[in-house]
Formats: sequence, C-alpha cells, structure tokens
Amino acid sequence: MLRRHTLMPVPASLEFAEGRLAIDSSFRVALTGYSEPRLERAVTRMMARLSHQTGMPLGPAARQGGPALEIECDGAAGEVGSAVENESYTLVVRRTGARLHAATPYGVLRGLETFLQLVELGDRGFQVRAVTIEDRPRFPWRGLLIDPARHWIPPAVIKRNLDGMAAVKLNVLHWHLTEDQGFRIESKRYPKLHRLGSDEDHYTQEQVREIIEYARDRGIRVVPEFDMPGHTTSWFVGHPELASAAGPYRIERGWGIKDPAMDPTREQVYEFLDGFISEMAELFPDPYLHIGGDEVNGVQWDANAEIQAFMREQGMADNHALQAHFNRRIQAILSKHGKTMVGWDEIFHPDLPTDIVIQSWRGQESLAESARQGYQGILSNGYYLDHMLSAARHYQVDPLSGAAAELSADEKKRVLGGEACMWSEFVTWETIDSRIWPRAAAIAERLWSPAEINDVDDMYSRLEVTSQRLEWLGLTHRSAYSRMLRRLSNYRPIDALRTLADVLEPVKFYERPSSRPYTSLMPLNRLVDATRPESDVARAFSRMVDELLADPADETNKEAIETWLVSWRDNHERLAPLIQSSALLREVEPLSTNLRRLAQLGLEALSAVHRGRRLRDSEWEEHVQVLERAAQPQAELLIMVEPAVRRLVEAARERR
Amino acid sequence: MLRRHTLMPVPASLEFAEGRLAIDSSFRVALTGYSEPRLERAVTRMMARLSHQTGMPLGPAARQGGPALEIECDGAAGEVGSAVENESYTLVVRRTGARLHAATPYGVLRGLETFLQLVELGDRGFQVRAVTIEDRPRFPWRGLLIDPARHWIPPAVIKRNLDGMAAVKLNVLHWHLTEDQGFRIESKRYPKLHRLGSDEDHYTQEQVREIIEYARDRGIRVVPEFDMPGHTTSWFVGHPELASAAGPYRIERGWGIKDPAMDPTREQVYEFLDGFISEMAELFPDPYLHIGGDEVNGVQWDANAEIQAFMREQGMADNHALQAHFNRRIQAILSKHGKTMVGWDEIFHPDLPTDIVIQSWRGQESLAESARQGYQGILSNGYYLDHMLSAARHYQVDPLSGAAAELSADEKKRVLGGEACMWSEFVTWETIDSRIWPRAAAIAERLWSPAEINDVDDMYSRLEVTSQRLEWLGLTHRSAYSRMLRRLSNYRPIDALRTLADVLEPVKFYERPSSRPYTSLMPLNRLVDATRPESDVARAFSRMVDELLADPADETNKEAIETWLVSWRDNHERLAPLIQSSALLREVEPLSTNLRRLAQLGLEALSAVHRGRRLRDSEWEEHVQVLERAAQPQAELLIMVEPAVRRLVEAARERR
Repeated sequence: MLRRHTLMPVPASLEFAEGRLAIDSSFRVALTGYSEPRLERAVTRMMARLSHQTGMPLGPAARQGGPALEIECDGAAGEVGSAVENESYTLVVRRTGARLHAATPYGVLRGLETFLQLVELGDRGFQVRAVTIEDRPRFPWRGLLIDPARHWIPPAVIKRNLDGMAAVKLNVLHWHLTEDQGFRIESKRYPKLHRLGSDEDHYTQEQVREIIEYARDRGIRVVPEFDMPGHTTSWFVGHPELASAAGPYRIERGWGIKDPAMDPTREQVYEFLDGFISEMAELFPDPYLHIGGDEVNGVQWDANAEIQAFMREQGMADNHALQAHFNRRIQAILSKHGKTMVGWDEIFHPDLPTDIVIQSWRGQESLAESARQGYQGILSNGYYLDHMLSAARHYQVDPLSGAAAELSADEKKRVLGGEACMWSEFVTWETIDSRIWPRAAAIAERLWSPAEINDVDDMYSRLEVTSQRLEWLGLTHRSAYSRMLRRLSNYRPIDALRTLADVLEPVKFYERPSSRPYTSLMPLNRLVDATRPESDVARAFSRMVDELLADPADETNKEAIETWLVSWRDNHERLAPLIQSSALLREVEPLSTNLRRLAQLGLEALSAVHRGRRLRDSEWEEHVQVLERAAQPQAELLIMVEPAVRRLVEAARERR
Repeated sequence: MLRRHTLMPVPASLEFAEGRLAIDSSFRVALTGYSEPRLERAVTRMMARLSHQTGMPLGPAARQGGPALEIECDGAAGEVGSAVENESYTLVVRRTGARLHAATPYGVLRGLETFLQLVELGDRGFQVRAVTIEDRPRFPWRGLLIDPARHWIPPAVIKRNLDGMAAVKLNVLHWHLTEDQGFRIESKRYPKLHRLGSDEDHYTQEQVREIIEYARDRGIRVVPEFDMPGHTTSWFVGHPELASAAGPYRIERGWGIKDPAMDPTREQVYEFLDGFISEMAELFPDPYLHIGGDEVNGVQWDANAEIQAFMREQGMADNHALQAHFNRRIQAILSKHGKTMVGWDEIFHPDLPTDIVIQSWRGQESLAESARQGYQGILSNGYYLDHMLSAARHYQVDPLSGAAAELSADEKKRVLGGEACMWSEFVTWETIDSRIWPRAAAIAERLWSPAEINDVDDMYSRLEVTSQRLEWLGLTHRSAYSRMLRRLSNYRPIDALRTLADVLEPVKFYERPSSRPYTSLMPLNRLVDATRPESDVARAFSRMVDELLADPADETNKEAIETWLVSWRDNHERLAPLIQSSALLREVEPLSTNLRRLAQLGLEALSAVHRGRRLRDSEWEEHVQVLERAAQPQAELLIMVEPAVRRLVEAARERR
C-alpha cells in the first residue's frame, strides 16, 4: 500500500532513495546558519503541527545525538516581501537525519511544509522516506482572493485560511476589503466609511496588523483591494459627496453590477482618496495596492450633466477614457505613497506606466496583450472558486497556455502567476472553507509545480490526502458538511440525506443568482450551501461506468455500480419523512424522486448492457424523459451521476 | 416526527401550549428591567449562536413590531458568585413573542440556554413551540473538574468547554492546576514553580484572568485546586526545600500515587504557602479554594526522622493526624486570605471548622457522614469521566441516594451537588472533548433536574441531539473521531476501521494503566484514544437483540440484526490490509478477527433462534471459547456487542 507520494504541490524535482527517517517523540529541529524570530516561530509552529498530525508529544523527551532535521538558511529576505522572492529550497532526507537548505526564509518556510507532507505512518511507525528534493516555484505570484465584503468573514477564518494557503505554498492574500455591500476595514481618518458602511462587521486596524503579521510569518504577502470607482456603494453611505449622483445611499443588499460610482471630475474626490490611501498605505506594508477598477457601468456618469460637460471639455470619447483619467490620478496618488497599482483588466490603458500589474478575469488573451505591451499580469480567469467547478477544471488552466503560449520568453516573465478567487455572494463564515478547500490546492499546484505535472488522476489522489491533512490546521471544509446536514434534518439521522447530497453539486457559474433575486440578507443554510462543490461519489461512479462500458463482462465494476444504483433507488423512501418535516428540505423532494427514477433506469440499463441485450425501444422516449428531468437543476442543485447513467442507457440502446 | 422535546437538562416544570413562535432573520431580543454589561454580552452571544445554529443572518434586517424575546431581570447578583445563587427563571413562549423573567443574571443566562435548545426546524421554518417553563436547579453546585496538569490543556480548549458547560447549566469549573506531573499556573512570587515544574506549558496569570472572566460571563465560578501536601512533585523541582525528603526532584512522568509530600513540620513550608496562597487568593475571586489533600501515602513522612520526632512530640498517633495538623494550618492561611477550604474526603477531620466543603470521591456514605457532622459536601464518586463508563451509569448516580437518602432535610441541604471529573492521565488537548461530551451533559441533568427525571431511554434520545448541538460551540467531541481514524489509516479510506471502532469501547476504570507502564510522554494516538467512551451501535444492537428474544418472530429486528452481523463478519477482510500497513493498527488485529468470529457465531445463533431450533451441543465448547475470546480486552479495547451476541447464543441453546 505504499504510494508514490502525496506531496501537493509536486516539487520541481524529487528522487526517493532507500531507507527512511523514523519520526518519534525525540524528533528535534535545529536552525543553523542565518536565523530570525520568524524562523524560530516557524520551527515552533512546525513542531506543534507535527505533534498534532501524529498525536505524539514532542516536548520533554531528549534525543540521543543531533537533531533529526537541520535547517540552514543563507540569509535574510527584505523586511517586506516583493513580487519576486527566492523561495527555492533543497531538502535531503536520509535514515540518519534530514537537512533543509534555502537561500532565504521563504525557502525554509516552503521546505518545512514539504517536510510535514512527507511524514507518513508506515508499518514501523511514523517516518519520512529517504528523498532528495530540489524545489522552486514556477510562478512568483500565487494568490487567493478572499472577499469579506459581500459576506463578512471574521479574522479567525482569515487566519486558518492563511494556514491552509501556506500549507500548499500560496503566497499572496488578495483581500477584497470594500464593495457595494460592505466597507470592511476601519478608517481612523474617515470613520464614517466603516461605521456606516459595514453593519458593524469590519476589521479593526489592530486586527489588520495582526493578520498581516500572521501572514508574513507564513511567507504570505497581503495585498489589499479598495475597489474604485465602481463597487463603491458602501463608501457613499457615509460619504455621498464622493458619488456621481446625489444620495442618500444605503448599503447595497443585492448582487450584480450596480450604478453608483465615484465622480472622477471632482478634485475633492481625489483629496479624499489621497487621505484614505495615505492611511492604508501606511497600514499595509506590501508594495502593491489593488484598486479594483472593474465593472463600471457608467450609468451615473452618463446621467450627470457636469460629468458630461467635463468629458466634452477634456475631449474624452467615452467612459473608458474617463475611467483612464481617474486611474491616472489614482496611480499618481499611489505612487506618491510608495505603492504600485494593481487592477482588473479594465484599468489597462496605454497611458499608465508599465510598472502596474493587470489582474485578468478575462483570460489568457487579455493577459498576453498586456504582457506584449510591457505590463505585468496575473491570471484569475479559470480560477473562480465561486463558479463551483471541479478541481480538474481549474487544474487544467495554465497562465501560459492559449494566447499566452505565443509570448516571447521575456514577455512570459511578465506573467507573474495567478490567483484563485473566492467571491462571497454565496459563501458565509460557515461555508467559505468548503468552497476554497481542497480545490484551491489544485490551483496552487498549477502555479508552483512544473507545467508537465498535469496528470489529473494523480492530482485527485494527492488532493484527497491533502484535504485530510488540511483539517489539522482547523479548516472546516470537511466537518461543516455533516454539521449542516444535521441542521437541515433538525438533528435527526442524516444517512439518507447524505446519500442524496453526496451525488449533488451546486449549479455552476452564475446560474444561482439568476435563479432567484438573492440578497445579502438571505440565509445560506440550504442543501445547496451544505453540498460540496465537487461530488467525489459522482466522479468515482463515472469512472466505474466508463470501465464497465469498455469491458461489459467486468463483474467487479458491475457489482459496485449495482450497489450504488440500488442505494439511490431505495433512498427516497428513507428520506421522504425527513423532507416532509423540514421546511428547508421541502425543495429537495424533486431531486430525491428524480434520483430514484434515474437509478431505476440505470439498473435496467446495467442489466441490459451486462447481458448484451438492449432496452426496449418502445420505452425510449420515457427513458429520455427520465434523463432530461434528472439533468434539470432543482433547488439550485445538479444530480451529478446523471451523465454516467445516460452513458449506460445510451450504451444499452446502441447495442441494436 | 414531532418529538416531545430535546431539552437537557429537563426543566423543573414545563408545559407546551398550542402554536409556535416563528424564528426568522428579524428575530430580536430586548433587555428590560435590570441590565449590566454581562447581560448585554450574553444577548450578543446568544444572537451569534442562534445565527450559527440556524444559518440565518441576524443583523441588519428590521423587525416589525417589538422584539421576539423580552428579557426581564429583577436585579444584580453579587460581583463574585457564591455557592448558592438564585438561578431560577420563567420562560413563556407564545405565537406573538417570548418572555424570559429571572431574579438575577444567573437565571437569565440559564433561561437563554433553554431558549436556544427550544429552537427547532419545523415544516414551516425555524420555530419555538409555545411553552411555559418554570425552572430552577435541584443542586446549587454543579461542577466539572478539568485536570490540565497530567496532560496540558490549552486555554482555547478550556474556553470551549466552558461554553459546553454553560449550555447544559453546569456552573463550577474545578481547575486542577497542580500535580506531580505539572505545575500549570504562573506564580509571579515563586516563578521557579511554573518555570521548572511545567515543561513550559502553563497558564499565564493574564490567561487565568481571561478565563475567569469568560466563565463569569457564562455564570460559571472557577475554583482552583492546588493539591497538597501530596501530588506535589512538580512543586519540588524548583523548591525541593518544601519536600519531606531531600531532592533533587524531576517532573514526574509516571501515573499513580507518588511518595513526595510537603513537610508539615517545618515553619518555612507554611511561610511559603502563605505567600503562594496570598498570590492565588488575589488572582481567583471565588470564595472557595481547593487544597486537594488526597492520596498522601506517608512514605516520605515515615522515612524522615525529624518528622517522626515531631509527631511523637505532638502526640500524633498516625499520618492522618499529621495531615490534619497540616490542614488546620492551611485552613488558617486560607481564612486569613478570605477563602473557604475545599478538599477531598481525606481532609475530613472533626478539628476543622464546619464551613469547609468536602468533595467525595469515596461516595454517598462518606458524603452523608460529613453532612451529619455539619460539613457541606459535593459528590464526585460515580462521576469520573475517565472511567469510560456509559452516560446511563453516571445518570443513575444521585448525590442524595444510598446513605445520603437517610439524611434529615437540613442535613441534605449540606449536600451542595456534584462534580464530573475529567482526570487527564489518558486525555490530551485532542481527545478531552470526546471524553467530557456528551456524557457530562447526563451528569449535568442529574444535578439540575428533579430527581424524578430518570428515564434512561428518554435521556439518551435527548443526549444525542444535545451532543450535536454542542458542536456549534466549537467542541470537537464528534469531529475528532474521524480525524483520528484517518491518522491511524495514514489518510486511506476509513470505512472498515470505523465499522470496527464503532462497536468498541476503551477498557473501564483503571484497567488501562494496569495494562502497561504508561507515562505522560507516551503518545495517546492509538485506536483506544480515538474510540468513543460509549458505543451507540452496541447500545442499539443490544436493544434489538432483547426485542428479538422477546419476540423471535419479529422480522424487522431479525433483518437489522442480520445486516449488522454480516457487516461485522465481512469487515476483517476489508480491514486487514490497512492493519498490515499501519504500525499503530497492528495491535487491533485480534479485535478484528474476534469480531469476525463473534459475528459468525451470532449469525448461526440468530438463525437458530429465528427458526426455533438450537445450536449443536457438540460445538458448545467452541462457541463459549469464541465468546470468551471476544470478551477479553485487546489493545485496551472491548468489543461491546459481545454481551448481546452471548444472549443470542444462550437463547439458541436454552431452547433444548
């Protein structure tokens, strides 16, 4: 049962050797060479995590001889992280001990995570197999965007997600702090911003400093985003004078692109922003500051006579030109306060200096275009975790594929990396972990590991172990599932509900908001919120069906498929009373009955395929109806085993 | 599917009425009458918990009309809690709103917990059924002892257990801070105590103050225990001059009763203790201070010529007299610092003033005896959570039963209540929640609810819901199980391991330490540590077997029993490869094979019982051997379905 390895992300190079280093209570670590408090804390934390992972006390017992792991760091990194740091390290493990060598503390931090992932329980105890690893990231910018604005995400949740990020070698927290729906950071200079714009849920500056320090300890930069000139309704509740239309404003409760936007024609707006950015530039040490800049619909600008007059006066052809004017002004303010600007595709304009960074939600083509023009870029298209896509989908998105593959070597260097995005229209403090993890780990691997590492099955087998290991960090991506199912069942037994939920996934992309007029005040406590973004059961079932169709005589697969189908067919009878008793489960009834019919049909098809017969043609229309019904979203959920059953049914027909 | 109710502890009186109060996002609470910051924080916390439990945002939406819950508190309680406080409250819920009335903040806190337990998910949404509750505790002292000395329990774990205590109306944290194996509290006056006696794991005074405040907010008193004159090895590492034999001393790593004890004959010892107690008396506001006083074996006293001379001089007959002398001196010091003494049975001595409190590990007889002599007492015998007994066992222990039932009404008043004890020889930060919860809730009910509330089946059905609800407080008693099984399996699938573990329980009472020479440095990461103290599967199976034996023609039970037995019979084949690959699971093999044989025998017996036949007499010896083997502890674990299978087998034989 020895697996190849379960490292995630896969290192640039690794070679296993004979033997193993035993890990027991006497395990010790020594820092040799350069040291600093951050490294000492990293070692303390690593020991605590090893103790948690293994359940062994690692304290008072004394080790005979030297430390089991020696760490040698060549020297310091800058006090504040920059976009490109040396994160490389070498880790050599032998029977007698392990040695981690890195040029900077970043390399040490990355190497310690690798070491922890190497610890396994073998037939003689905990161990690390002898190995030589030379590792370095493919891209220097590997981020996760968290949006605590649309739904509030408390500091403790941010912290455990920083732990998760560090575990898979992500190194940028992109913190989307302001939105139409909430202004989530304390401003001492303009306290009406957070007091009136946040429903009392915001980070104090002390909490921000603590989180930055927490991230820095883990080799993670924190890039704040203050989205402007659009996505700014919450600013205007306290400061309507910044807007392009008269107030009063209230915190936005709905989702989507809204009209309110700052007025780019008024000097007072820039004076205000100069004051605000000066405050934030001091609070956030990172050299970058994100100004958003996305999705300005221009409605307020078009309707404002003074703005229109300004544009005519300045000879501006359109709103894009007006926004470019705004961006130039903001860029000058940022520059004055020592910050480099980051923004979404929309800010791209040849008038801006080339040291800005473009974050692309549009895709590789847009990314390539800005790289050709000399701009640095990061990719987020294809990495939207809120789209509820599979880990495999995200995994296959490469920042340097498509149009970006055509770039010259120098242009390619301008593609700094990518960012997974956790937009929070449909996540709360309770569900955010399960929407980020484990899928973000697949994106992390894409951004760290060599491009050739792209075997999806292998990725999934390592992702499963990675997901389990992430639990030791306090992440709730696994445990929240049962807890939410129990709530939906009013604490009655959940076996039948779990059988259903295990084959479901939430609808994809933007189907959810288009299904009903959601607001930020609506509870996210339904089955669609509990259900995992990706059904492992459906993936396993789909593979079994494919194997069976390739070899219809295969008895093992046939039996396993049958067992699944029978359990789905018989599930509704067990689940029905629960559905009746729970207001929140009522909407799930069609899913449950559709699954029953689908499974019944699947059983017929299975039997036909297996015996080499075919389904009766006279019933074909009926079968198609069953499949179509099962493929329809219900309660914003999809039955993910439908495509595999459809393949079975089609195979049973084709045998004519 | 409407249940009677799921309240735990059951209120003194409750009566349901027609109708229900709907709980939605507009739910609001108002404090009328007396208020204080503690009550305001309680309401904020209650709103957050209601939001967690239901998954509904309870913030910005405005409620039409008045608040859904009005709280009226008559007046303040003392700044510091005393042993007897007025915790009574009245809660009336009607369709139009709810009203909670209490004399003191204690009653409000208790009533809010009841309200939260009443919230259920019905067929029209979240609701509280109309009800009138008049509630008050049967005993004023309802405690939980936590021992962070033998294994270190970090502050965060203490806090979440305080949340759990408050949820089931426990009101005393008995904090066992010093032991042979660790001195777990910072002493600013004598810093060698914690610096040399704690392996660096101890509570700072700041953390202690924070925990006391956290507890006070929840209506929980914190009684510190500084065990003396025995159980004091860790004191002597830094202060060997306090001991009755020359040092040097090292932190004790083994379990059991140890020889080191303070020297009761030397004045310097009392001077030191006066200084220490003065410091602690200031830190802990509670009127009580626990001095332990248990298990002094006298070995050091017997061997010390000066002590022997002192005893002869003072005419002391035995070591008990010497300890009584020590206790009188300590009692005087406590009294000087405004504290009332609490101690274990051993401190009981007619020379001590009657305001002290005796905590009885010996039982109701000892408790009754001290009550007759005018002393107040609390019961812990029968409430030792580390004995790994069933909730039902603890539930049936009544402080006023047995010898205590014979007491006069006035004497009975001296029985203040009881304390569940979580001694930590075999728990760590990781497993302590699962050893305390949910069983402590059954003890909490015994101490709060009327004596007539004692239906065990009803208790278990409410305990299951209570256990699930406790999860919302961050307790890990349920989630740790899977996590630990995954560790044991090195993150491979755990289904087969869970099937085995679900029917196991750790050995009882003191069988575990007698099985091997345990020390505090040994990992507690084996299957016995992951396994729950009480097997729900075994309890359900046992009941099914009893029902079947009462009515052998019952097909439903027969089928369910057969399904269980088949799954156990076939489990070993699935589990064997995992056992082979994991050093920590190797010891489990005999359990797995014994379960297989036991299930095989059970199936034969079931078939015989069902058909009214009998097992072959020639094989009887063999059957008995299978049962005996399955009844033997293996790897410190018991197969809890063995007794039920035995009943089946015996029934199959009796039918001759």
